[in-house]
Amino acid sequence: MSKSMRKLNKIYLDYAASVKANPSSIHSAGMEAKIKLQNSRKEVANILGARLEEIIFTSGGTESNNLAIQGVVLAWQGKGLPHIITTNIEHPSVLKTFKLLERRKLAQISIVAVEPNGIVDPKKIKNEIKKNTVLVSVMYANNEIGTIQPIKEIMKEIRHYKKTSRKQGLSLREFPQGQSLLFPIFHTDAVQAVNYLDLNVEKLGVDLLSLSGSKIEGATAKAGQAGRVGILYKKKTIKLEKIFGGGDQEIGLRPGTENLPAIIKFSKALKSAQNIKEKETERLTSLRDYFFVKLLKMPFNIKINGDLQNRLPNNVNITFLKIPSDLLVIELSVKGIMASSKSACESSRAEGSYVIKALRPEANGEVGGVRFSMGRKTTKKDIDYTIKALSQILTKLKKWY
Amino acid sequence: MSKSMRKLNKIYLDYAASVKANPSSIHSAGMEAKIKLQNSRKEVANILGARLEEIIFTSGGTESNNLAIQGVVLAWQGKGLPHIITTNIEHPSVLKTFKLLERRKLAQISIVAVEPNGIVDPKKIKNEIKKNTVLVSVMYANNEIGTIQPIKEIMKEIRHYKKTSRKQGLSLREFPQGQSLLFPIFHTDAVQAVNYLDLNVEKLGVDLLSLSGSKIEGATAKAGQAGRVGILYKKKTIKLEKIFGGGDQEIGLRPGTENLPAIIKFSKALKSAQNIKEKETERLTSLRDYFFVKLLKMPFNIKINGDLQNRLPNNVNITFLKIPSDLLVIELSVKGIMASSKSACESSRAEGSYVIKALRPEANGEVGGVRFSMGRKTTKKDIDYTIKALSQILTKLKKWY
Repeated sequence: MSKSMRKLNKIYLDYAASVKANPSSIHSAGMEAKIKLQNSRKEVANILGARLEEIIFTSGGTESNNLAIQGVVLAWQGKGLPHIITTNIEHPSVLKTFKLLERRKLAQISIVAVEPNGIVDPKKIKNEIKKNTVLVSVMYANNEIGTIQPIKEIMKEIRHYKKTSRKQGLSLREFPQGQSLLFPIFHTDAVQAVNYLDLNVEKLGVDLLSLSGSKIEGATAKAGQAGRVGILYKKKTIKLEKIFGGGDQEIGLRPGTENLPAIIKFSKALKSAQNIKEKETERLTSLRDYFFVKLLKMPFNIKINGDLQNRLPNNVNITFLKIPSDLLVIELSVKGIMASSKSACESSRAEGSYVIKALRPEANGEVGGVRFSMGRKTTKKDIDYTIKALSQILTKLKKWY
Repeated sequence: MSKSMRKLNKIYLDYAASVKANPSSIHSAGMEAKIKLQNSRKEVANILGARLEEIIFTSGGTESNNLAIQGVVLAWQGKGLPHIITTNIEHPSVLKTFKLLERRKLAQISIVAVEPNGIVDPKKIKNEIKKNTVLVSVMYANNEIGTIQPIKEIMKEIRHYKKTSRKQGLSLREFPQGQSLLFPIFHTDAVQAVNYLDLNVEKLGVDLLSLSGSKIEGATAKAGQAGRVGILYKKKTIKLEKIFGGGDQEIGLRPGTENLPAIIKFSKALKSAQNIKEKETERLTSLRDYFFVKLLKMPFNIKINGDLQNRLPNNVNITFLKIPSDLLVIELSVKGIMASSKSACESSRAEGSYVIKALRPEANGEVGGVRFSMGRKTTKKDIDYTIKALSQILTKLKKWY
């Protein structure tokens, strides 16, 4: 058959196989899709300093965090009750997963309280490590207050513990043969860090790292068209148990046809975010500090939530004493300004932010904090307008509060 | 502030909240997204004859099936070991989930063998129901051989069992108070049925029903841009336990920001598929039967896999005795024809199709079956070309096999 004839007769008779480019199909359309999938995987692996087979595509950050935490705990089943450690300001997809596993009697949990500046003390993490601790999960940067956790210092504490316990022969006695080097495994939820912080897993010293496509600027630039996709970096030596039963996709850990169009956009957006990271970090840091200065100059009683230095360049989070932040967000929205009062993932609850509560347990939960999170398109003019709008709103609200 | 001024100042300071339209955000952009999400949910609910709060959006069919099966089993924990029933030709996301739950000692499982025509006998399902049976999961239509299962008949058997066991007072003794009406719960994986069969949950009599966006024609028409999305219909009275820890999205059962662009496309595509269902079913049925007649007229030893009548209008699955179907798929691909030899979800395994094996246990697994699955764009000309290509390939291969 001539080549031109072949071109005339491209017949697709694989409609039942999902999208017209299922990377698991063995015909040529499937092979093309497979190559594209692997190229995206390579792109992501390069940025993280990881190997190709260490990148698992998932449906988003929530699934990545669940696969990391549940995956370690489930892989441990039958070897005694495992113990896992996290902090009290993690994203719900970490904190609630810990509570889920505790409720199902699959794990003992320790939740370490952060300091009043929203940063966890690595020594306090270390002090919680026990003989049966299989996992430490600490977020890279907080989603509400933007504080950056000392990942490398925590990693050093974990490594020190491993070395010491090995010396005492503890691990070999307590853990299945050969696994003494592995536990506790270190996971970080890097979802909010993706645009601004170093993502090299070698330098960070993490075994598991979660990212979400929806938090990468560019992945969603055009009306959020990238769809939902996430990754879990899993160090080759770490054994996870899958959550879903199903097909063999993603080294057997994530069944279901891969979301190829979203994965391609994810890898491109990640690369582009990396390219402008330094410049954007610099620009947004000075914008953020300008915002803080303007806020503190206002004649209202304001508290800044979270450390001022170790914080994402795009995050501003403040509490206006006595004024409920939900109300402020709605008033700001009327003036065309979209801000947030707590994690959107928690917004159907009537309670205030648990993150703000963790910083000031004595404060009124209902007041909470208002988060302004900036991006590529945010300008100084936007900040000036926001300050002006806030001033008008607060002047009005002051009469009632 | 004047309206025009407001328009000039639309400032987005919620970059940390995922996509620029997080349905859980309380500002106006979030509210708009929430309305769109609910409109899509309403569209889907209408088509299924369900209520708004009975539709849960997930990341795809695999997750929907897992949420249904694991959800029932996990909700049962602490009340004794539950028993669950399925068939031996289910999709891996059902069959492997059953095996996962058995391996984790969370459930007893029964796997009912289908008849040689690929259809399960409802009586055989009924015979497996025990006092601790909490779930029966039978697919609506098979992904490889297209056979349509007698869902309504199985439903009648289950209802009969419920009535009888209630009369004997069994349920009240065995099950927690008030749940006698519920068990066994009936789930169907309707992923492959979506384009051609009746999806009214009331008429089908199911409690749980899974759909996947990637199998709806139109959802992926433009290069698969709909992304991965699925739904689980959950009858209001059924209690499920979530799989993921995280936010409160999707009545708490599916944490993670909703994939709104994909959800909107899903609901539109589902509606459009419903609108042309009858016409397409008629057209494809005659095309399918034309294909079968042509195949049977060929001078080769051919076996048709699966019942000829109770079968999806777009599915043709055949075995060429002695010739490995993987080889045939590759040869067809060279001629520009994309077919399939087994579920793409299983393609990384060297074994042949377990579905074909279930129909003819004595057959050589490696030979398997070749599936041609047609769609909106498939024409009679495509079938003629495929028959011609097959004839050329088989003539060539006959020399070696």
